[in-house]
Amino acid sequence: MSLTIKLHLTSQLNNLGHKSKHNLAKSIYNINPLITIKKCKVKQRIKCNNSNKNMIKSSLIEPDGGTLVDLIVPESQRDSKMAEVESMAKVNLTRIDMEWVHVISEGWASPLRGFMRESEYLQSLHFNCLRMEDGSVVNMSLPIVLAIDDETKGRIGSSLHVALVGPLGDCVAILRSIEIYKHNKEERIARTWGTTAPGLPYVDEVITPSGDWLIGGDLEVLKPIKYSDGLDNYRLSPKQLRKEFESRNADAVFAFQLRNPVHNGHALLMNDIRKRLLEMGYKNPILLLHPLGGFTKADDVPLDVRMEQHSKVLEDGVLDPETTIVAIFPSPMHYAGPTEVQWHAKARINAGANFYIVGRDPAGMAHPTEKRDLYDPDHGKKVLTMAPGLHKLNILPFKVAAYDNRENKMAFFDPTRAKDFLFISGTKMRAYAKNGENPPNGFMCPSGWKVLVEYYQSSQAEEASQ
Amino acid sequence: MSLTIKLHLTSQLNNLGHKSKHNLAKSIYNINPLITIKKCKVKQRIKCNNSNKNMIKSSLIEPDGGTLVDLIVPESQRDSKMAEVESMAKVNLTRIDMEWVHVISEGWASPLRGFMRESEYLQSLHFNCLRMEDGSVVNMSLPIVLAIDDETKGRIGSSLHVALVGPLGDCVAILRSIEIYKHNKEERIARTWGTTAPGLPYVDEVITPSGDWLIGGDLEVLKPIKYSDGLDNYRLSPKQLRKEFESRNADAVFAFQLRNPVHNGHALLMNDIRKRLLEMGYKNPILLLHPLGGFTKADDVPLDVRMEQHSKVLEDGVLDPETTIVAIFPSPMHYAGPTEVQWHAKARINAGANFYIVGRDPAGMAHPTEKRDLYDPDHGKKVLTMAPGLHKLNILPFKVAAYDNRENKMAFFDPTRAKDFLFISGTKMRAYAKNGENPPNGFMCPSGWKVLVEYYQSSQAEEASQ
Repeated sequence: MSLTIKLHLTSQLNNLGHKSKHNLAKSIYNINPLITIKKCKVKQRIKCNNSNKNMIKSSLIEPDGGTLVDLIVPESQRDSKMAEVESMAKVNLTRIDMEWVHVISEGWASPLRGFMRESEYLQSLHFNCLRMEDGSVVNMSLPIVLAIDDETKGRIGSSLHVALVGPLGDCVAILRSIEIYKHNKEERIARTWGTTAPGLPYVDEVITPSGDWLIGGDLEVLKPIKYSDGLDNYRLSPKQLRKEFESRNADAVFAFQLRNPVHNGHALLMNDIRKRLLEMGYKNPILLLHPLGGFTKADDVPLDVRMEQHSKVLEDGVLDPETTIVAIFPSPMHYAGPTEVQWHAKARINAGANFYIVGRDPAGMAHPTEKRDLYDPDHGKKVLTMAPGLHKLNILPFKVAAYDNRENKMAFFDPTRAKDFLFISGTKMRAYAKNGENPPNGFMCPSGWKVLVEYYQSSQAEEASQ
Repeated sequence: MSLTIKLHLTSQLNNLGHKSKHNLAKSIYNINPLITIKKCKVKQRIKCNNSNKNMIKSSLIEPDGGTLVDLIVPESQRDSKMAEVESMAKVNLTRIDMEWVHVISEGWASPLRGFMRESEYLQSLHFNCLRMEDGSVVNMSLPIVLAIDDETKGRIGSSLHVALVGPLGDCVAILRSIEIYKHNKEERIARTWGTTAPGLPYVDEVITPSGDWLIGGDLEVLKPIKYSDGLDNYRLSPKQLRKEFESRNADAVFAFQLRNPVHNGHALLMNDIRKRLLEMGYKNPILLLHPLGGFTKADDVPLDVRMEQHSKVLEDGVLDPETTIVAIFPSPMHYAGPTEVQWHAKARINAGANFYIVGRDPAGMAHPTEKRDLYDPDHGKKVLTMAPGLHKLNILPFKVAAYDNRENKMAFFDPTRAKDFLFISGTKMRAYAKNGENPPNGFMCPSGWKVLVEYYQSSQAEEASQ
């Protein structure tokens, strides 16, 4: 596996000669710096007066488009907007449409200010990016669209604006200056997933049952989206995350996207990256442990169970709570591999992350009808390093960790003694938990493992009682 | 239909005030200039000494990447290269692989210097463009790849370079510093065509029967590719075309891609565009009438018939031979709509064209399994105006011409008297010719029509005798 890294060099590193920097980079990630160090950017630092306290404050990475989008209507305007929607044509949202309203409203998709109009849709579908008025380019790999059916289209008629109605029947948003265009599902699916095989979870759940039209426009969200599931406190917006990073004086933010329980191999990797960033001269790298909170496929571990498991990992000290922020990323999951990993990375730029960790086969899954991975496991990482609009982000490739039978712990895989290592896949992990077996000692912190065992055993009990 | 145009303003136009220019643009193409005039670039003009003779000479548009790629081995090195290939592993080319060798060798795909390696393939597939080392972007919407099978891969082993062998058994080229990677056909097809439905001509003919690996590398072509079909004189390389434009003192070159016979509606459009360019201040706009010469589907009119028909159109004076260059574009046809039209436009930049005419549903076809167009007929034009790397090209949208029953000639469609107009599709045209019927008077010049009738009647006779 070839490792690549783009170094975001600190002023300390910049005092080194060109050759020393390359050697340092090489020694850190065992890479060929001639190929891989693309752009060295000096981070803007603002020294506080009291330099003894090592209070170096950094400006965080700029959100896409320069300004973080925030589409929540200010409290002062809420009543007048609520009155306005009364007379508007109504468009009903599904649960997953609501997740997108949430995502757009908080600026995860900055500079996108609403559901895509056709021009944005076509650029996203064909180029995975949007060209801004000044000629600059932002990444936008997934079409973020709202589908409506013939009947709704008829009801809208020639209206300029529509009201969006949540699954509970309450008006949650206004879509202004709308544009309605055809929803060619086959083309959307083929260009997004690189296959049209039946059995893609997001396609089956969201696209196939949806209408034959797409409606784009500018979004105004009447109040922040809440789920009342006991986890809203973890749903930090990009603005809140940026504030948190600032308040912790983060000078590097490295994001880890996940939709699985955290095992000690993940923890090893994250702690290792932190160590490397410190060696590179960063004083206070903060980890954004960022589980995806929207739609996932049926056999993924549910969000509430994962959140409990992540809490245990922090309580156990496997990850350091002082330098880790756990928050929920509200996007639904597409399982669209190299196309989707760009979205996962791009959204984290908007939340203030300037380093993004990418592993084997990100956002991938098994091919729905053939016995193989849907995507080449290396393509996600490769596409991410090439993607338009993501060149300002530092891509940190995942080192593969596995259970080291000689050391009885999770360790970075050493190909020179491959036979010592045991790869514990998600499927194998689930099998252990379902059978109430323990994985090898040191695979996961015991309290975290307990959460999983309880979840799988109660699901089995539930299934049995049905 | 919304029309868009990017104006390449001459110095004459630049003497007008901002408002006047916009009004002129608006009157020419009936467009909203606020939306559509994106970048006004003054063409670099070199005035010759004898200004009375109106000898204004323009530098042509720069090829993608700055330098026109030319991969034909110089005569002086041919013998030594020919000796070198003797010991190389051999890769057999199909007829269509040879068309790509031709295309790449002459620089139509500049800055591409060979069949794509994986990094270029992935960028083409996901982003329709390649990022150059200096951060600039060139358009590259179709993967230009060479497929090999397991057996060939085995034969190549760890060779660094291979020899490419044409269908007649002669070594035509060397591929240097090769890279072999997986050919995921399903993903390639889905992302290129936006469908995986069976019955796409290029897929059935080229991709499905091809091997499961792709081989990329730098191409050295041992001698210019010739077809010996009596049409090689029309196969002008981008270098030759540029020379021809220079020698004619062209100050604007407008390209018209086609794979159908030219009727008087096409001629009306091309003559109209020339007139508009003259009104805009260009002194000598040259039309590149540029029929595609590579693979086409079975029911398209064959190249030799089309070339004969085009000759008649020029002989008849329907198009002016003084200001028109007819040449063959050697690329095979994908019928991949909005993805392919970018390739068609990009290749013409390399040949020196700075204006590109785009019509309804470019490179489109009927959906192979459903009763509808495969692509939205407006998407090609829209995608073209948005495509990365094509912003330097001026896109001229096609005005729709149809047979005007009131005037008994081809004319621009006037929606206010729609009932007067007859649309003669390709299918209808073929039906007329097959039945030996004449289309309405003024649809096509009689000598050009005769070529088509003779072709269809001889094909029918051939079929009947089988």
